[in-house]
Amino acid sequence: MRFEARVDVTHLPGIADPQGATVERALPALGYTNVSEVHIGKTIRLVIDAADEAAARAQVGEMCERLLANPVIEAYSIEITELAPT
Amino acid sequence: MRFEARVDVTHLPGIADPQGATVERALPALGYTNVSEVHIGKTIRLVIDAADEAAARAQVGEMCERLLANPVIEAYSIEITELAPT
Repeated sequence: MRFEARVDVTHLPGIADPQGATVERALPALGYTNVSEVHIGKTIRLVIDAADEAAARAQVGEMCERLLANPVIEAYSIEITELAPT
Repeated sequence: MRFEARVDVTHLPGIADPQGATVERALPALGYTNVSEVHIGKTIRLVIDAADEAAARAQVGEMCERLLANPVIEAYSIEITELAPT
């Protein structure tokens, strides 16, 4: 079965987010003074072949730990959606 | 009213995604041969004060066009959630 996985990688609380801080500092200069708490993370989308949703989720979790995220400074969340057979 | 906005920025179809391509090439070396179509984008989360949801969405869209995304090569989608009053 084929699944689409979507992984959201965000900074752990307390870890500096320089991209978010830079955007937050830039916004008032563009006239946007009503925006706060800007955080920028990455989103990984991929297609995975697996026996079932649990197997897909387990493998994506392992891939996050090994390659997609840095568990020392980042948190990740995984959404799995089954793709219609083609 | 305060809203949380979540902006997903992805590459437009046909635009090279070097980060995704690099991860896709790295996965087989780690033993993951059942993964394809890896795409990596960014996600921006922020808090915005606005009169209503439509105003928040309109302003975030304008911010995407001006700063958060590059409309020439990127697409973006916006989700707005009302935050409980504090």
